[in-house]
Amino acid sequence: MKNFILDLPTRIYFGKGQIENLSDAIKPYGNKVLVVTGRSSAKKYGVFDDVVEQLERNKIKWVEYSGISPNPRLREVLEGIEIAKEENILLILAVGGGSVIDAAKAMAFGRYASGDIWDYFLHYKAIEKALPVGAVLTLSATGSEMNGGAVITNEEKKQKYPYISDKLKPRFSILDPTYTFSVPKNQTAFGIADIFSHVVEQYFSPTTDWWIPDRISEGILKTVIHWAPIAYNKLENYSARANIMWASTMALNGIIATGKITDWATHGMEHELSAYYDIPHGEGLAILQPYWMEYVLSRETEERFDIYGRNVWDIKGLTLEETARKSIEETRNFFNSLGLPSKLSEVGIFDEYIGEMADNLGKREGTIGRFKKLGSEDIEKIYRMAL
Amino acid sequence: MKNFILDLPTRIYFGKGQIENLSDAIKPYGNKVLVVTGRSSAKKYGVFDDVVEQLERNKIKWVEYSGISPNPRLREVLEGIEIAKEENILLILAVGGGSVIDAAKAMAFGRYASGDIWDYFLHYKAIEKALPVGAVLTLSATGSEMNGGAVITNEEKKQKYPYISDKLKPRFSILDPTYTFSVPKNQTAFGIADIFSHVVEQYFSPTTDWWIPDRISEGILKTVIHWAPIAYNKLENYSARANIMWASTMALNGIIATGKITDWATHGMEHELSAYYDIPHGEGLAILQPYWMEYVLSRETEERFDIYGRNVWDIKGLTLEETARKSIEETRNFFNSLGLPSKLSEVGIFDEYIGEMADNLGKREGTIGRFKKLGSEDIEKIYRMAL
Repeated sequence: MKNFILDLPTRIYFGKGQIENLSDAIKPYGNKVLVVTGRSSAKKYGVFDDVVEQLERNKIKWVEYSGISPNPRLREVLEGIEIAKEENILLILAVGGGSVIDAAKAMAFGRYASGDIWDYFLHYKAIEKALPVGAVLTLSATGSEMNGGAVITNEEKKQKYPYISDKLKPRFSILDPTYTFSVPKNQTAFGIADIFSHVVEQYFSPTTDWWIPDRISEGILKTVIHWAPIAYNKLENYSARANIMWASTMALNGIIATGKITDWATHGMEHELSAYYDIPHGEGLAILQPYWMEYVLSRETEERFDIYGRNVWDIKGLTLEETARKSIEETRNFFNSLGLPSKLSEVGIFDEYIGEMADNLGKREGTIGRFKKLGSEDIEKIYRMAL
Repeated sequence: MKNFILDLPTRIYFGKGQIENLSDAIKPYGNKVLVVTGRSSAKKYGVFDDVVEQLERNKIKWVEYSGISPNPRLREVLEGIEIAKEENILLILAVGGGSVIDAAKAMAFGRYASGDIWDYFLHYKAIEKALPVGAVLTLSATGSEMNGGAVITNEEKKQKYPYISDKLKPRFSILDPTYTFSVPKNQTAFGIADIFSHVVEQYFSPTTDWWIPDRISEGILKTVIHWAPIAYNKLENYSARANIMWASTMALNGIIATGKITDWATHGMEHELSAYYDIPHGEGLAILQPYWMEYVLSRETEERFDIYGRNVWDIKGLTLEETARKSIEETRNFFNSLGLPSKLSEVGIFDEYIGEMADNLGKREGTIGRFKKLGSEDIEKIYRMAL
């Protein structure tokens, strides 16, 4: 295991009606808020109204910036930064899912950044200062509500890159499962695939002899496997939405990565894919993850798959190799059971850019993945397996 | 599930050599530290020297208060408060195990408290302000390194009470597994029993349909069950000490209690016991916990025991009732395998004060336990089963 430093500064307000705490959560940071939201759902389903009611009732000054896209765009971030500067904003409140929160984080550090913002993403330039960010979550998926990551798409350059800093961790997040009742079936499934994949990226690791994060990871996966079909089939089931919501937060707040080398190859491949094709992130992950598993499974790695099969999928009485294979089959079946595709061709992606995407990744990163290192050729093979 | 607010403000520095970060951790809080430590082990085994070296090298002013007892005494807390006032202390640094950290927390709020400090413990009087506390942990057991709890013993009154406040959560904790290498076998076992019991107290709950905390609890228990015999038999095994250390922190930092009604009857009974007899807390828990389980097992509660048996102890192919019974047997065997006793008589406790202790608890608390409510009569029966 590796040494680690763990910082979890985000205060979590979890449960129905927790919006009542919004003004208490905001007040330590000052009385001028930029409310960032997406295209329509927060407004359509009343979450935005709930936020505004709390702000007005508690006399908190606020400005709105709405229209953030899924896969949020650099130009949207730049617009938000201008507003934050002009209006002397003191806190950015994201009302939405991971895209909105990510955009809010990028605005938060962009407010004080010098030069071209995209350089921070390209070169991991260190940030000095950022506005505080708070979140009211409406979609369980990315975990952005309790971590320092922001993924932004530069449309012009066909680049989708993450930026991560402790300074971007939200100061608070309001997690009300009823705010996800209106998320439709397909979006619910995309979110679940994202959560599942986040855990897998951290679980498959060369780090051994370090149990707590792995056993917690298995617990999150078992929770998702149990509650996903219920949430998917009964969109307003509170217990299911609550379990999935807390799974999404716990999957990517740093706890299951403590002390571990983590992989993230599938996310790297998916980011490239959705920079080119703008498909939902969760859909891309559901397609790619099982092929990644098949590609990296070998004599060297099969023990980890065996543990995964036994502890997560409850596979008993098979050989180590059979358990490993069966665990991959179960993973793909799970995604399929939520209506998610198994092939890129099912979502209209054929081999046009496969070589280019694999080349980009290889050139930029050298290799991706730390459970198993993958170069351009490996990446291209995995993309092609998924066609 | 219940709504919850979760705050985890403690920065964790985990791993060998993390003491190097001590001055960075202290500096935000000012340059005058009260170093609180125990009777001898931190000094004997070099941890205290490591701390002093960091303080001196970084020109941090410090004052020492050593000699805190296991089951720390109110009078020790009062002495520390006097020093904190006289010396204008800005941060209290606990170097030791849970007892030292608990004493430091009580000093931290006592510094600003008015009237009799014991009133805060007796009546849960709210605290307004506390000095910041930091910790360098030398014993894996109580979880005090990442929570707001402090348990103090009033010897005169034969009372041992907890006080809990978010304001007492350490600002940082340095968790270096090598600092626990010198913990002897029996203390190692007491610590493990404490960790195990903390999880059980939160796992056995009337809250159902809320999976993440329960699945994490099972993961912590499985980690403890696997690594405990290794730590116990090879005191300097880094992986074992590291897993047990992180288990101790994760067992009581609030994460596995989120959204749940928790029990804590066994801890209540043990606190009474060690207020009378001054036995090690973990030893008392190891004796009482299996009898508590036997006493509360019924048709109503057996489903939770069944889940415990299957998910933690991997018991298969038995009836629900058999699984429940077997899970209790496994729990007791586990404690015994670490050289821990199963009977109060083994540690020289006979029936002299049984009635008095049960009476005290019943009078003070009405009932204890929320998985199953227990009054004085129930408590007396459990004590007697354990004789």
